Amino acid sequence: MPQYTPPLRDMQFVLHELLDVETQLKALPQHAEIDAETIDQIVEEAGKFCSNVVFPLNQSGDEEGCTYAGDGVVTAPKGFKEAYQQYVEAGWPALSCDPDFGGQGLPELVNNVLYEMLNSSNQAWTMYPGLTHGAYACLLEHGTDEQKSVYLPKIVSGEWTGTMCLTEPHCGTDLGILRSKAEPNGDGSYAISGTKIFISSGEHDLAENIVHLVLARLPDAPAGTKGISLFIVPKFVPNADGSLGERNGIKCGSIEHKMGIHGNATCVMNLDGAKGWLVGEPNKGLNAMFVMMNGARLGVGMQSLGLAEVAYQNSLAYAKDRVQMRSLSGPKAKDKPADPIIVHPDVRRMLLTQKAYTEAGRAFCYWVGLMIDQEHGHPDEKVRKDSGDLVALLTPMIKAFITDNTFESTNLGLQVFGGHGYIKEWGMEQYVRDARINMIYEGTNTIQSLDLIGRKVLADGGAKLKKFGALVQAFIAENAGNDEMKEFIEPLMDIGDKVTKLTGEVAQKAMKNPEEVGAAAVPYLRVVGHLVYSYLWARMAKIALEKTTGANDFYATKLATARFYFAKLLPETAYQIRAARAGADTLMALDAEAF
Amino acid sequence: MPQYTPPLRDMQFVLHELLDVETQLKALPQHAEIDAETIDQIVEEAGKFCSNVVFPLNQSGDEEGCTYAGDGVVTAPKGFKEAYQQYVEAGWPALSCDPDFGGQGLPELVNNVLYEMLNSSNQAWTMYPGLTHGAYACLLEHGTDEQKSVYLPKIVSGEWTGTMCLTEPHCGTDLGILRSKAEPNGDGSYAISGTKIFISSGEHDLAENIVHLVLARLPDAPAGTKGISLFIVPKFVPNADGSLGERNGIKCGSIEHKMGIHGNATCVMNLDGAKGWLVGEPNKGLNAMFVMMNGARLGVGMQSLGLAEVAYQNSLAYAKDRVQMRSLSGPKAKDKPADPIIVHPDVRRMLLTQKAYTEAGRAFCYWVGLMIDQEHGHPDEKVRKDSGDLVALLTPMIKAFITDNTFESTNLGLQVFGGHGYIKEWGMEQYVRDARINMIYEGTNTIQSLDLIGRKVLADGGAKLKKFGALVQAFIAENAGNDEMKEFIEPLMDIGDKVTKLTGEVAQKAMKNPEEVGAAAVPYLRVVGHLVYSYLWARMAKIALEKTTGANDFYATKLATARFYFAKLLPETAYQIRAARAGADTLMALDAEAF
Repeated sequence: MPQYTPPLRDMQFVLHELLDVETQLKALPQHAEIDAETIDQIVEEAGKFCSNVVFPLNQSGDEEGCTYAGDGVVTAPKGFKEAYQQYVEAGWPALSCDPDFGGQGLPELVNNVLYEMLNSSNQAWTMYPGLTHGAYACLLEHGTDEQKSVYLPKIVSGEWTGTMCLTEPHCGTDLGILRSKAEPNGDGSYAISGTKIFISSGEHDLAENIVHLVLARLPDAPAGTKGISLFIVPKFVPNADGSLGERNGIKCGSIEHKMGIHGNATCVMNLDGAKGWLVGEPNKGLNAMFVMMNGARLGVGMQSLGLAEVAYQNSLAYAKDRVQMRSLSGPKAKDKPADPIIVHPDVRRMLLTQKAYTEAGRAFCYWVGLMIDQEHGHPDEKVRKDSGDLVALLTPMIKAFITDNTFESTNLGLQVFGGHGYIKEWGMEQYVRDARINMIYEGTNTIQSLDLIGRKVLADGGAKLKKFGALVQAFIAENAGNDEMKEFIEPLMDIGDKVTKLTGEVAQKAMKNPEEVGAAAVPYLRVVGHLVYSYLWARMAKIALEKTTGANDFYATKLATARFYFAKLLPETAYQIRAARAGADTLMALDAEAF
Repeated sequence: MPQYTPPLRDMQFVLHELLDVETQLKALPQHAEIDAETIDQIVEEAGKFCSNVVFPLNQSGDEEGCTYAGDGVVTAPKGFKEAYQQYVEAGWPALSCDPDFGGQGLPELVNNVLYEMLNSSNQAWTMYPGLTHGAYACLLEHGTDEQKSVYLPKIVSGEWTGTMCLTEPHCGTDLGILRSKAEPNGDGSYAISGTKIFISSGEHDLAENIVHLVLARLPDAPAGTKGISLFIVPKFVPNADGSLGERNGIKCGSIEHKMGIHGNATCVMNLDGAKGWLVGEPNKGLNAMFVMMNGARLGVGMQSLGLAEVAYQNSLAYAKDRVQMRSLSGPKAKDKPADPIIVHPDVRRMLLTQKAYTEAGRAFCYWVGLMIDQEHGHPDEKVRKDSGDLVALLTPMIKAFITDNTFESTNLGLQVFGGHGYIKEWGMEQYVRDARINMIYEGTNTIQSLDLIGRKVLADGGAKLKKFGALVQAFIAENAGNDEMKEFIEPLMDIGDKVTKLTGEVAQKAMKNPEEVGAAAVPYLRVVGHLVYSYLWARMAKIALEKTTGANDFYATKLATARFYFAKLLPETAYQIRAARAGADTLMALDAEAF
């Protein structure tokens, strides 16, 4: 019942008008040849694939779910395998991969655009190739030459899929206490035993082999996070010629019954002396896994961007179609028994909230995607360093800010439908259920906020935050004399000042009481997230102001959406700043038993 | 897997220490004999019934759902019928009903306490008796003597259940455009035809008969809401002796597949010349139905209060049990591999948000319950009028403020569980799914906010709001010299002033542009809701200050929760006031086509 149309116009706006990616990519030797037109063609083709092949399986996949047939066998919902085969045949898994391993060598940014559309179409399905792309990135950076030559071509082609096996029944956030063991077999391989849970895409029928990246402890490894190593544990051990060899001792024991993402198999994986090979250095497994984890965090942001877009499209269509009550300022559709509900101010609030968050989220994700390409491929070391620092700073916000906003957006989308939003047939409630996991996995949003304030801001004395601040300052300076931009520049300056002040206050308090960091973290992330969105909306407003030719063109709408953002969404910071400032006292006052 | 223990201590605190219900009820002739001890005994018994009989069916009912067997036959999940029989045999349906019709004549307030616990135990199941109680209230007020004598004894005993049939495929909020028709049969009955959708408890196997209250139009009725009449349409037409006669022409055509409340049958009801009898006056059906609707709105608040409590209990238990990471201020459970997650500030924020909203919600619901008893039974007309005015003012907040807060609370409860919160087995995600409908049905929360600002505040020039303000003023005056209360009285005064100012501003703007009312409504309701909670938390804090004997007693915890509320939740108003003030301009700027 829901519909999805790839939002090509807004994608082009972000890629070309906001980010000027053609010029930016020309500075990167490996992408110097790509022009805007090529990117648009790829995106358009990808959009057709997503909306024609992947999207039609979203509701049926939710309804059917995955099936555990016993003895480790899991099947994905009907049609998932065939769609995946088409995906592989069309070469989409290889889009942004290294040509040395069969990749097409396109920018990661372009892959991000593909993933937005895949996730709008079907988040559960997209997790199969999504985790595979994470395994690719991890092995590319940390695998041995032999590991790369055996595994990467199959992963790049999509013939084999990947997983990340971190969580155990007693540890999710706290990987320091994980127990899975790896004993040397004496031939360079290890025998790995333990139980992993919540393994997305852990077992399925989409691909002939599954490459698990597994965290485990070597004998005599130090306790805590410094004693964790990373291993490749293939479902079938590849022979020297790349053909599939013996079935390895890693097996799915059951699958979870979940609130959403029913089409993705969330597996308990039992390892019983499974053969594994060390990736990276002993006891440094978390470092290696963080490549995959950071990619996954950005990926989760893309999941929520995708869901926000498709939920918005459908609630907008409904709001234009459904007639109910008359406008408060007099009938608008006099030929109908009532007005379309889009005339009502609060329906507009719900639609514009979705729209403003979605479009800012798109600008945010693509911008970070571009910086990832710059981090990896820019000839100037300073640009690489600066891009890397900004990506590190922004990653927890991509993950937490976008997923929180999307949970609100999908819920508003549902609400626009009234009672029909609660009915499965209309599809809106699935978006809410699917969106809900994004606030949890790959590090809960609380963990993201602690990562932001602790590791990304306070740990370097605010150096990375200042790099971002310098961009904001430069934009403000650039527009100092521009009267038309005043309505955007003033609140941007204001929120920038407030972030600076709040950061200083939290840093001060944290020196006296470390609990203050934990108390401030979540509201702090929302405040800084709004600084990012204020900056992006101000930049988008500037372009819109320059290009609009009158009411109702694309730019006029962009401008109106920017104004809505500053008037109605940014003021959330007034609350969050107060909540952050209120500190730890009222949180820590009670003993656990007194709750 | 989830657990539920009736929160008797906090219930007693609200009933006896906050509201002093024994004294209050003594002033009402029909309740003058009830003492606190009797109430506590009833509540305790009710709690046993809820937790032992109704609660165990919650997860299984969600998993199984209702079944449509074809030809109008619907069965509720396993065990629902037997539990309902026990409920009827124990006399719970009659608790607060009129003794003239077999009721026990207890205060409505006591029924509210029962319903909190029923809803904590199983919202879907509770909707069967819940709607029945609404039908009781409507017929008691608007039925003829004959209708009362035929229907009420069976409804009061619970042998027959009830429904409200309002919504049609093309109209939910906008009842003015409903199409169902009622043609006189010439014998005092009417032949009613039409299609009703979203009829909760519309068909099921719990009771031998179902009494539908149906809105339809008489021939030549005026268009719009002034041409709607209300009819009793029984599933089986009762014979003169009260036995069941012919099967009536109202039949379930199908049931909906929904996000939650799976155990309650949401029915399409087809009326094909079904026999109905007019309730109240012709064309005044909406007035009569509003008795049931207002009851239902309070009932939805009680549903969300119940869900918030049970979600809190379970996330609290999990937070004490689950160990993960060390406290930021040093290990707390040195004998364990990690600390219980309740040591972490943000986990406490999530728990305390649930706790503060739940306990304020309880105070709010019981207080309004008491005022309903005063409205109906106080000998002094002024008290009846004042109580009625306050109930009218507060009803949209009971509905919208509590259901919004509970959606946040149940989501926080889920989040405390991390990945496990997303797994059905743990039960937390069901609470989120069930809670979601409460923001929609019986008038969406947008409709509630329009009711508050439009009908309840602006329509009488703020008279009802001033009545509430007078209570707040009196409490402030009473505590003027109390230094210990300053920390609560100051923010209470502040939010009171802000509500006064904001109300005036919206009223001013509304005179120039009616869209301003719609633009302000939703944030306005949140601001006034927080005024109510500030008042209730200040009152509860006062009692706690007077009674606490030291750290960790019940009152110390109450005080700490009050402080948390003022420090961390009330500041949301800083956002909502800004959002309300931002007005209609940015909402109405775009043409529908330009979105």
